[in-house]
Amino acid sequence: MSEKQVVGILGGGQLGRMMVEAAHRLNIKCIILDAANSPAKQIDGGREHIDASFTDPDAIVELSKKCTLLTTEIEHINTDALAAVTKSVAVEPSPATLRCIQDKYLQKQHLQVFKIALPEFCDAPDQESVEKAGQEFGYPFVLKSKTLAYDGRGNYVVHQPSEIPTAIKALGDRPLYVEKFVPFSMEIAVMVVRSLDGKVYAYPTTETIQKDNVCHLVYAPARLPFSIQQRAQTLAMDAVRTFEGAGIYGVEMFVLQDGETILLNEIAPRPHNSGHYTIEACPTSQFEAHLRAICGLPFSEINTQLSTSTTHALMVNILGTDDPDYVSKIAKRSLSIPGATLHLYGKAESRKGRKMGHVTIISDSPQECERRYQMLLDVKDPVESPVVGIIMGSDSDLSKMKDAAVILDEFKVPYELTIVSAHRTPDRMVTYARTAASRGLRVIIAGAGGAAHLPGMVAAMTPLPVIGVPVKGSTLDGVDSLHSIVQMPRGVPVATVAINNSQNAGILACRILATFQPSLLAAMESFMDNMKEIVLEKADKLEKVGWKNYSA
Amino acid sequence: MSEKQVVGILGGGQLGRMMVEAAHRLNIKCIILDAANSPAKQIDGGREHIDASFTDPDAIVELSKKCTLLTTEIEHINTDALAAVTKSVAVEPSPATLRCIQDKYLQKQHLQVFKIALPEFCDAPDQESVEKAGQEFGYPFVLKSKTLAYDGRGNYVVHQPSEIPTAIKALGDRPLYVEKFVPFSMEIAVMVVRSLDGKVYAYPTTETIQKDNVCHLVYAPARLPFSIQQRAQTLAMDAVRTFEGAGIYGVEMFVLQDGETILLNEIAPRPHNSGHYTIEACPTSQFEAHLRAICGLPFSEINTQLSTSTTHALMVNILGTDDPDYVSKIAKRSLSIPGATLHLYGKAESRKGRKMGHVTIISDSPQECERRYQMLLDVKDPVESPVVGIIMGSDSDLSKMKDAAVILDEFKVPYELTIVSAHRTPDRMVTYARTAASRGLRVIIAGAGGAAHLPGMVAAMTPLPVIGVPVKGSTLDGVDSLHSIVQMPRGVPVATVAINNSQNAGILACRILATFQPSLLAAMESFMDNMKEIVLEKADKLEKVGWKNYSA
Repeated sequence: MSEKQVVGILGGGQLGRMMVEAAHRLNIKCIILDAANSPAKQIDGGREHIDASFTDPDAIVELSKKCTLLTTEIEHINTDALAAVTKSVAVEPSPATLRCIQDKYLQKQHLQVFKIALPEFCDAPDQESVEKAGQEFGYPFVLKSKTLAYDGRGNYVVHQPSEIPTAIKALGDRPLYVEKFVPFSMEIAVMVVRSLDGKVYAYPTTETIQKDNVCHLVYAPARLPFSIQQRAQTLAMDAVRTFEGAGIYGVEMFVLQDGETILLNEIAPRPHNSGHYTIEACPTSQFEAHLRAICGLPFSEINTQLSTSTTHALMVNILGTDDPDYVSKIAKRSLSIPGATLHLYGKAESRKGRKMGHVTIISDSPQECERRYQMLLDVKDPVESPVVGIIMGSDSDLSKMKDAAVILDEFKVPYELTIVSAHRTPDRMVTYARTAASRGLRVIIAGAGGAAHLPGMVAAMTPLPVIGVPVKGSTLDGVDSLHSIVQMPRGVPVATVAINNSQNAGILACRILATFQPSLLAAMESFMDNMKEIVLEKADKLEKVGWKNYSA
Repeated sequence: MSEKQVVGILGGGQLGRMMVEAAHRLNIKCIILDAANSPAKQIDGGREHIDASFTDPDAIVELSKKCTLLTTEIEHINTDALAAVTKSVAVEPSPATLRCIQDKYLQKQHLQVFKIALPEFCDAPDQESVEKAGQEFGYPFVLKSKTLAYDGRGNYVVHQPSEIPTAIKALGDRPLYVEKFVPFSMEIAVMVVRSLDGKVYAYPTTETIQKDNVCHLVYAPARLPFSIQQRAQTLAMDAVRTFEGAGIYGVEMFVLQDGETILLNEIAPRPHNSGHYTIEACPTSQFEAHLRAICGLPFSEINTQLSTSTTHALMVNILGTDDPDYVSKIAKRSLSIPGATLHLYGKAESRKGRKMGHVTIISDSPQECERRYQMLLDVKDPVESPVVGIIMGSDSDLSKMKDAAVILDEFKVPYELTIVSAHRTPDRMVTYARTAASRGLRVIIAGAGGAAHLPGMVAAMTPLPVIGVPVKGSTLDGVDSLHSIVQMPRGVPVATVAINNSQNAGILACRILATFQPSLLAAMESFMDNMKEIVLEKADKLEKVGWKNYSA
């Protein structure tokens, strides 16, 4: 397909390894510049790889002679050497972009010109300017190294003026700048693909959880309202638009404590730990996206969306610990977790904190991802999250409502059952309805009698389908409940079943869940077959014994 | 994880290549025996691969000295040479199993002993015995080569006695046997994993479509009733249980024209073309399954089920044609198809009929897979399949029912709309309801008035959720329709909405579909927000202008 492209990759770590894996499926030839037996080289049979540092100018020249296109899996490279070879070979992203991004201060200055939302920052060439920044931004603030900073290295949170000399010393003899401390409520990241002709495409917004300043867990999508997720994608795309050069970019951002304001933290001009989940969860992985972008192969929105119904993913890094068996233990355990895929990176020795591999867990709900993650942590008997909520206005409805629970048990659908009264616990009802979807419920069954407001009020406060069961009261034969439940105004439907027939509500909930679950659909088919058999047996008996003897 | 295992693979074609790809993620070292630069070797940086034929006894001995475990990606190997090294190295599956399976006549004799359902067959050492078989089985029958037969090579369908000498000559100087001709309605296949301790696990039943005797398309699952799919899985597992040795087995079967009888055709003791879809569609691919099985790593049912809601897959082989650009053309086009993943095998030259790669398309419905396949074939404007069916008893209901269609248009949900009368077109109603699920519908909206039987009757004949809209007639204010629709007996629910309120039926259908589609759920949330805004605007206006001026 891209027979003519030979891609030289600067760096052969795990990011290069996964990039090479994607290249194989596209028949794109890669030549890797890094130490012998680095993870990427292990999985490529080419004989032209170069054993040298990816910062070595001579090696970069040698690589450029063998390739049609150079790219990188790490931003801490020799951009001068890279710029020098652009006359003979394409480089993506461009050396200018790499140079700007690898100096965090330059990066922020650049983004500020384009009005990208950032924490406040200023240059800090000496102790005096750091002190001045402290006065201006207040304490704490963050003293940062402009270059060679990653995984939290190169940052120092300064709480008071007396700490400044210590902080400067700790960061070594490197150029520094100061950033205002951002009290964030969540760290998020978006992978953005930029094509050769400058079009940008965003992957979903993810939530990243750091441990000891290293990426530990990634939730895709982030546990944020959809509108905030979309704003983060827009900010990330706007930021990437300002840079030259094709490829994938990881854009890290903060969500502030108001839950709404989003500031850009920093950009990585390469595949990113927060995008590993895309291998399993998206039609096209971040690694294939990068190759497609730099080689000018087709790319569109369809490639970046979460796959239909692989709607949630959770990625866990496997970091080396003091226990030499830890990596193989967690790796082996992952093989027994539903929806989990193991990626080991082929690194020879496991050092503490070293990224040895990762596990991606996919599912159709965040709760199920979390449950499977608990299994990976070896938590015994993690709870299965309910997908159906059965609620009723009063415990006196239970005798009528329990048949719904019996059916859900029969179909092995996890549910919760409780009392929520529209008229006696209105606040509880509001909370229940408003949180139902985010708690992982997919269907609500609500039973009520008389002036039966519960089903309709709940339907007004959730986008989930609500099934209403009219419970027969002591007067009016349940017609009052039926009309209260079924006659909802335009815009807010309640799926109403027959009076007192909560069994049908349970069956309807199963039919709804079965729309995307073929095994449940098959179970519903055999349930219906079974009903048929029971009636046919009765017919058979009636015909055999005659109507006179049948009742006896 | 399996640091101590070094797996030697006999054969380095595309099956070996995809096996090696899986091995990388598990940190399992592989050494490949095949010609230099074979597809598997291209993607492995190891330096110990052996450049020789996988049938060369000396090379097998050399390989055995470097490994702890030997396996194969092809059954046409030198089993004597393999048996000879079992004293020093494990071989999975066992040489005895490989020997039995590579001779199709021996394979069938073996399976017959274990009472596995097979087409009738008999030995055919000479022309006389072939003629006798023709008399016994009738014409046509199939003359088959016992060994070295694959992709239809080694089979000859004999239609009349005079063809026998030609058939024998065509099959060359090889041992032959005769099989009764099986008039099948579908060819299917099941991948079965067998662990070291003899446990077996089945992947879904797939449908295989051959073109010129070579696998062309694979549908997962097969387009068969679920119960037949399950019987095929059972037969496949029963067959694999009879063999010794761990690993993955491809079991090919026929479904006869009665749509029910399943006969085993043949077994491959290795990954199989019909199992490529498992890379994208299942938690664990057939290649990783094979490695886990032979290395004794954990494996269970969870690994073989289709991933939640990646409920359907379609695999298309990319075969070389006379057009030298064909492969790169189809490969490039696949990059723009939603849910499609491209796998190229790194084969240097494209010969006619050579397997150059494959594309797997995944989706949550067979119709959507098919639509995407049409896109791959460059069919212009493939039709989007409806997921909601709107039906009504009479065209006089249309003015009441059209609001459901308006809402579905608003939410961009594809639907179909037609007239189905329970009382005037009962047969049409039966057909509509019975085929709804298999045609890809997920929800049915049915409107009817008076003795409104349509929603309930349709619900009785489909496992899908049915939404009933009571249409108000000229008498009784629609209460007749409401009670006819809502008061369904236990076992068959209809989700009833308010009288004449088909808009709510449309919204309820969207809520049902949104249970597994987060983007639709988000759209429902903003629809509800919008309703709120409209009411608040009205409230604002009412407060401003006062009630006396409001109506004017």
